[in-house]
Amino acid sequence: MFNSEGFLQKINADAFLVSNFFNIIYTTGFQTLSPTEREAYVLITKERLYIITDSRYERGDVADDIDISYIKDGKTATDSLQGLCQLLSVKSLGYEGDNLTWNEAQTLQKIGVHLAPFTRAFSFLRSIKKEEEIFAIKQACHIGDSVLRDMTPYIHPGQTEKELAWIIEKLIREAYASELAFDPIVAVDEHSAIPHYNTKMGSGSVKEASLLLLDFGVKRHNYCSDITRMVAIGDIPDEIITTYRTLLSAQVNTIKYIQSATQLKDVDLFCRSELKRDKLPNYSHSTGHGIGLEVHEFPKVSGLSHDDKQAGEVFTIEPGVYIPGKWGMRIEDTIFISPEGEVEVLTRFPKELILV
Amino acid sequence: MFNSEGFLQKINADAFLVSNFFNIIYTTGFQTLSPTEREAYVLITKERLYIITDSRYERGDVADDIDISYIKDGKTATDSLQGLCQLLSVKSLGYEGDNLTWNEAQTLQKIGVHLAPFTRAFSFLRSIKKEEEIFAIKQACHIGDSVLRDMTPYIHPGQTEKELAWIIEKLIREAYASELAFDPIVAVDEHSAIPHYNTKMGSGSVKEASLLLLDFGVKRHNYCSDITRMVAIGDIPDEIITTYRTLLSAQVNTIKYIQSATQLKDVDLFCRSELKRDKLPNYSHSTGHGIGLEVHEFPKVSGLSHDDKQAGEVFTIEPGVYIPGKWGMRIEDTIFISPEGEVEVLTRFPKELILV
Repeated sequence: MFNSEGFLQKINADAFLVSNFFNIIYTTGFQTLSPTEREAYVLITKERLYIITDSRYERGDVADDIDISYIKDGKTATDSLQGLCQLLSVKSLGYEGDNLTWNEAQTLQKIGVHLAPFTRAFSFLRSIKKEEEIFAIKQACHIGDSVLRDMTPYIHPGQTEKELAWIIEKLIREAYASELAFDPIVAVDEHSAIPHYNTKMGSGSVKEASLLLLDFGVKRHNYCSDITRMVAIGDIPDEIITTYRTLLSAQVNTIKYIQSATQLKDVDLFCRSELKRDKLPNYSHSTGHGIGLEVHEFPKVSGLSHDDKQAGEVFTIEPGVYIPGKWGMRIEDTIFISPEGEVEVLTRFPKELILV
Repeated sequence: MFNSEGFLQKINADAFLVSNFFNIIYTTGFQTLSPTEREAYVLITKERLYIITDSRYERGDVADDIDISYIKDGKTATDSLQGLCQLLSVKSLGYEGDNLTWNEAQTLQKIGVHLAPFTRAFSFLRSIKKEEEIFAIKQACHIGDSVLRDMTPYIHPGQTEKELAWIIEKLIREAYASELAFDPIVAVDEHSAIPHYNTKMGSGSVKEASLLLLDFGVKRHNYCSDITRMVAIGDIPDEIITTYRTLLSAQVNTIKYIQSATQLKDVDLFCRSELKRDKLPNYSHSTGHGIGLEVHEFPKVSGLSHDDKQAGEVFTIEPGVYIPGKWGMRIEDTIFISPEGEVEVLTRFPKELILV
């Protein structure tokens, strides 16, 4: 259960308006159909949580101590919010400045309470995972391992990237009754050099000799995993195999290094320095990202990160080597800092180059 | 190709910042991986369009007359935007007040240009479909018809809602190589009384005698269709069959009425008055919604709509009858107003109650 009183004390406001789709799930468990349409808000008050939504949604699986305030015909969400604020004598209201739109923030002005925007209001809370959250993430990671075990032995020349992505998706959804954390990235040869390759819009296929990147995540009970592994089909150049060994050693050393780190930006720096020492090019993305309800959340594992390493955090470690126009490789694991401060690797599929 | 000059003249600004995921696709064809993360902006200037994104994205399928400005290491999107505005002597900049977050709007202040928020900046343009957009929507509707033809004869007691939703999805994605417009709503018996029933979170199954609602959409070349049909399994009460006939007649009459309407709110009122005359309860959602790149867009077909009926519009007509706790039904078609002003029904699957 969400600790409203503690949260409001910390931000020093009578109430807080949640608008972010994932923060609504985090605080109430309530989930609307579309993450890209604004279909609900949550008002956090000391005593209770109020979901403000329209009558197309019924109570569903909402806990008893959460109220639902349905927006009346011809009225707006702001009207409902104003009514609640008056009823509950709310004088000061916090909101998510990094989620509420400019227009929505303007509309809030008229409800006649003191307003205060907050940035990343839930990031810290969400970055420290509770036991049931860890349990779901571990399951998600385990399913990801199983999917790799199920499908990699049968990869063969002629298969398209799209077909392989669809096999991954069907295994996750049909065989393991879970969801995708994101659309799988399946990138062959020169496509693997593009860190955010869009498999759905591309058209590659496995050749007699190919390097293949598989980057996918599982969502289990709303919590995500993330893993990247590399597959070599047929005879690939020695240069690739050598580079892979070096990258793997950098990734493994970085995971070992976490134990002694206090700031996550140092983890990022360490990983890059490992590659640099071995004369490999730098990668343009961050070394890792927090993961939970969202596939990208806090803490950040990048050179610009201000986040400390803390017990309860879950994040990825995913350095890569990219030779534009030729090939690329990345090795990614999902990592957990246990309550005892131990570094646990939750994705356990072997990290050697998969040979088929 | 997007007419930048005409657009900027109309809003009376030197440049415009696009942030909405779908408006970025609309203006440039450029598509980022996640619609829920801010991964790109587009700057519209008189001469060219500039995509501001990070180096994880490569040029991809972007037209030659569009520039990509990659955000430099350690810099932000705002820095890139500021650089472009200085380079291009932009003095006034419009932005999407209904999409940019409060924080982002605050950050824009510092780039030193005159700012002007706009609401629904692209809604009117997007609501009038061009020929290639109509072509994609017609294909999407046609695939939806085929999916119903393929799967409805084999619906049988014991199947779960989730299984049926997965069959619909596999047909759309695997057999017809298209995408979902949204997660299918498959709702049996009392679940069909919830207009926004969440099939993924529910647990219903078809009984020996059941009423089943199927509401799904296809996305083809980025454009959506939307259709709802009802299935009766086994012997269902006469009351349901009679109500269905009345609802169908109201839906058909409403589609006929569109021809003579000038405002879409009148279409909404007409449909409700048809049901009221026949002593059926009112429905809590709107009678329809525009559809295109998004499954819900302009024009609105509701009592609060300010939208005129215009050639080129595509929208749904979807009245329903809901008896909470018991059963519900909805009949939905996707409609097109042709350049000649004719009303075309694009979803052609027969509208009679499907008996299995």
